[in-house]
Amino acid sequence: MEDLSKYIEHTLLKQNAYQADFLKLFDEAKKNHFLGVCVNPAYVKLAKENLAKTDVKVVTVVGFPLGANLPEVKAFEAQKAIKDGADEIDMVINVSNIKNKDWDNVLDDIETVKKACGNTPLKVILETDLLTSDEIEKACILCIEGKADFVKTSTGFVKDGIGATAENVALMAKIVKPYGLKVKASGGIRDRQKALNLIEAGADRLGTSSGVQIISEE
Amino acid sequence: MEDLSKYIEHTLLKQNAYQADFLKLFDEAKKNHFLGVCVNPAYVKLAKENLAKTDVKVVTVVGFPLGANLPEVKAFEAQKAIKDGADEIDMVINVSNIKNKDWDNVLDDIETVKKACGNTPLKVILETDLLTSDEIEKACILCIEGKADFVKTSTGFVKDGIGATAENVALMAKIVKPYGLKVKASGGIRDRQKALNLIEAGADRLGTSSGVQIISEE
Repeated sequence: MEDLSKYIEHTLLKQNAYQADFLKLFDEAKKNHFLGVCVNPAYVKLAKENLAKTDVKVVTVVGFPLGANLPEVKAFEAQKAIKDGADEIDMVINVSNIKNKDWDNVLDDIETVKKACGNTPLKVILETDLLTSDEIEKACILCIEGKADFVKTSTGFVKDGIGATAENVALMAKIVKPYGLKVKASGGIRDRQKALNLIEAGADRLGTSSGVQIISEE
Repeated sequence: MEDLSKYIEHTLLKQNAYQADFLKLFDEAKKNHFLGVCVNPAYVKLAKENLAKTDVKVVTVVGFPLGANLPEVKAFEAQKAIKDGADEIDMVINVSNIKNKDWDNVLDDIETVKKACGNTPLKVILETDLLTSDEIEKACILCIEGKADFVKTSTGFVKDGIGATAENVALMAKIVKPYGLKVKASGGIRDRQKALNLIEAGADRLGTSSGVQIISEE
């Protein structure tokens, strides 16, 4: 039976979380040996303080969850987060630019944030609920060109969105893996079977707030 | 009959809007003499180009819609937006800090962004759907202390949120108006009767994507 804990980024992104919710998240991540936690930028410092002596990575998000910010603002947010202790950065792509086939600006956005990240791994959230398969494919190609480290499916914040699907993960994996990029599935991952299906489809990481539930089903 | 057009900030914040949607928004704002348009930061420059020779204000949002960013990132985003032509800045308050009664950091967040705004009016979005009446009251007091120009109810992005209510607007108005701050109601404003109710309760501005519908009901 596969050990799922090393796939899981234990995630708490809701904007009205209490201090106790964050502390619980960090404790669960340590206890269950999750790969990382994923929190909003205002809580990176708190996460790093609580996880400093562990191998649990601190992951954060920039331009989240709409991605409709200026590239230099996403880049600045990434730099500040890295300074605060973030080990990985998950940026949201500019979806309108994809809809408008404004590929130059999609690429510029990714490149600008990657430059700010330096050696810190960058994941690019495509928000697959809002894209066609052709748009997902094109976005993946631009992530390769922009030297992103991962492509990621979803923010989890799209109204009535379904989040990660095995079909989209497989499509993304097929395009990016030959170039050395990895795939993070996120959004709507609430049980072990779904988690296993996504890994089978090519996911290297799972972003979920149901990590404890998922591994307790083993 | 009250002229509602001068209350309306014609709003398009969805992340997958097409270029044509923005151009339509700007045209409608001009034709109907709305007070302003409200768009995400990546579209401020486009808005200003299209509205330069009019008196339609360009309003944008920072730290939107979660507010869980670092104060200096919200401030940087505000500065960039003003440089791009924004006439007013709507920031999202840090809701977790309110939940944790971390009033110093709530105030610091507002003050940091206001400092970056200078003379550009700053609205603070409280996200009332997530707050108790006591928390709304305390947040309003901190907005007065932080020298904000407006308090604003909602982002429109809370899952199952109802947005602006006459009750919340009246509460906010009662607290801030003696100190010269104004109130912007936003979220769930879809018809003329609701708009009139909110103005009656104390709203000085209405953030809505239904402005054309609302004024055509006159």
